Amino acid sequence: MSSADHGSRRAALRAQIRERGLDAMLVTDLLNIRYLTGFTGSSAALVVDARDTADSEDRTVICTDGRYLTQVAAQVPDLPSLIDRAGAAALVRGLSAAPVSRVGFESHVVTVDNLSGWQSTAPDLEFVRTPGTVEQLRMVKDEHEIGLLRRACTVADLALAVLVERGGLRPGRTEREVGRELEFLMLEHGADGISFETIVAAGANSAIPHHRPTAAVLATGDFVKLDFGAQVGGYHSDMTRTYVLGVAADWQREVYDLVARSQAAGCAALAPGVEVSAVDAAARSVIADAGHGELFLHGLGHGVGLEIHEAPGIGALGTGTLLCGAVVTVEPGVYFSGRGGVRIEDTLVVREQEPELLTLTSKDFVIV
Amino acid sequence: MSSADHGSRRAALRAQIRERGLDAMLVTDLLNIRYLTGFTGSSAALVVDARDTADSEDRTVICTDGRYLTQVAAQVPDLPSLIDRAGAAALVRGLSAAPVSRVGFESHVVTVDNLSGWQSTAPDLEFVRTPGTVEQLRMVKDEHEIGLLRRACTVADLALAVLVERGGLRPGRTEREVGRELEFLMLEHGADGISFETIVAAGANSAIPHHRPTAAVLATGDFVKLDFGAQVGGYHSDMTRTYVLGVAADWQREVYDLVARSQAAGCAALAPGVEVSAVDAAARSVIADAGHGELFLHGLGHGVGLEIHEAPGIGALGTGTLLCGAVVTVEPGVYFSGRGGVRIEDTLVVREQEPELLTLTSKDFVIV
Repeated sequence: MSSADHGSRRAALRAQIRERGLDAMLVTDLLNIRYLTGFTGSSAALVVDARDTADSEDRTVICTDGRYLTQVAAQVPDLPSLIDRAGAAALVRGLSAAPVSRVGFESHVVTVDNLSGWQSTAPDLEFVRTPGTVEQLRMVKDEHEIGLLRRACTVADLALAVLVERGGLRPGRTEREVGRELEFLMLEHGADGISFETIVAAGANSAIPHHRPTAAVLATGDFVKLDFGAQVGGYHSDMTRTYVLGVAADWQREVYDLVARSQAAGCAALAPGVEVSAVDAAARSVIADAGHGELFLHGLGHGVGLEIHEAPGIGALGTGTLLCGAVVTVEPGVYFSGRGGVRIEDTLVVREQEPELLTLTSKDFVIV
Repeated sequence: MSSADHGSRRAALRAQIRERGLDAMLVTDLLNIRYLTGFTGSSAALVVDARDTADSEDRTVICTDGRYLTQVAAQVPDLPSLIDRAGAAALVRGLSAAPVSRVGFESHVVTVDNLSGWQSTAPDLEFVRTPGTVEQLRMVKDEHEIGLLRRACTVADLALAVLVERGGLRPGRTEREVGRELEFLMLEHGADGISFETIVAAGANSAIPHHRPTAAVLATGDFVKLDFGAQVGGYHSDMTRTYVLGVAADWQREVYDLVARSQAAGCAALAPGVEVSAVDAAARSVIADAGHGELFLHGLGHGVGLEIHEAPGIGALGTGTLLCGAVVTVEPGVYFSGRGGVRIEDTLVVREQEPELLTLTSKDFVIV
């Protein structure tokens, strides 16, 4: 697999910084730092110099503490590093000595106390709010990122296949046992971790959109809803499948078919330039037309990447359009309180032509 | 087990708020909200009214969103709740209509953007920084909290006992396999989750203080260092044990004995009113006297509770004294780079008489 091109990501950020009339930007969100440099330690700050000179990379500095001396050299060989427990404050001290005056910062992440500390350290600098700048860039994934997301989705596909194949979904087991086994299988198949606590919801619990697994026992005739994901190289997969145990009733076939058609309509609507609200509407209208609009209780989907939930949100009230290279989920659901519910969810890449499906497990109606 | 007395915790906070001349405090850190109310949802804000009237509890309001309508009623029956997606901003709106003028806020947690949003919503309110106020209260655990910590420590003790008993620590296994099994055993024995990613470090890797488990294979003669913990009811345990596989060399016995003596000295120094730096010194001097001071690379310990690392820090540069009811770790280590290292760690309660040990696994020199 190709290696990540952090230099290109920093170049894209520099263009954004310059457009705002700033000399530099202080990045303190750890995931944004990982995205821009590859560094995965738990303590870091980054100053991205954006002045229009040839050596802006040489004046872009990552700071971490002594625990990460070796790691930062290995993971970020292409940038100068500073070892200082003071972190961002140490970088601010350095900036105040440089010919820099306007510095952007992540005002959606930086605390009131941190900013006031920086202002005391460097009273000559003007700190300018630039919330969400890196997150905006992160919306469009490069092929390296898509490769990691594809692997994360494959791990989840494999784990679910093994779970079903070995009879892991059977009456008498608890939701919690099933959840643990599925998580264990993801780790066995190469996940670095799980994306989030696995949702296993059986019977009436399947009507709760985000149910935490309990000691409830799976029984014949139950819907069993599984919402889970694997992490690979920091990137998250997200998939939901709903099965029926043993024997299916007609109402179960009907609601499954409805959600499957809604999900297919949502996936088909994914294309560059489409309003996110229109994607939501494409899926929601299928359910509303069947008279169950009020049972689809949540948004249609969300971006996925270094975070399990990131931009763009795909919902009725969402604004903005999809970009080519965005990776999003499409996950409609219909929930009959006290009886059961169905959700079907895939992770997909928005492409110029048709979207690329990353979660490949069948969405046919399956009785296990 | 007793139930948590959130009302007493809020009363203690009110005394702090009044002492600072404030009318109310806005609490937005989710763990602090859990501590003060018992609410465990992922979205919440709390305003604690502290004006000196009889109905200050009735004017203390928790806000969350619609997903938690049922949960907040069940978990926080003793406070009025507000369902509003705007969260803290909705509470600020309410405050601006009340006879309140000076409001404390958690400036170490609140972002620059959040504060500026509140100031626009309620230009008449004065927002006053009160960083760490609830964390300070959280340092001293009540008996309900100690009960949960005791259970979390017992789960970890049991899991390790089963792992060793069933031969889980044997040559040929990888660090990662051992780590997964230990985590699985904690979940099996009643943990709600793990405290942090388990450290399993074999052979030369044991000389790396915070090594992440790899595919490295355990071999006869290795030190195997296990640093791990269980979560119960939101509270974390933290314990480290170091074993030798198969056959022990003299140098291994010597370094183990040294660290064990250092750890015992650190535990013996725990008492109310003792400077944290003196506790660190009590343990560190044992290692320094043996000529290995420079191989003890980190602080001696830290508080543990709703977070795995919380106040007080126990290190050479730490300030402040221990309080009765604080729960802390004592974890000296000696690391010979390229050869191996030993760390021994317990979680203990600071008591008026001698400290109460919560992690009960033997600290004898053990060859497995």
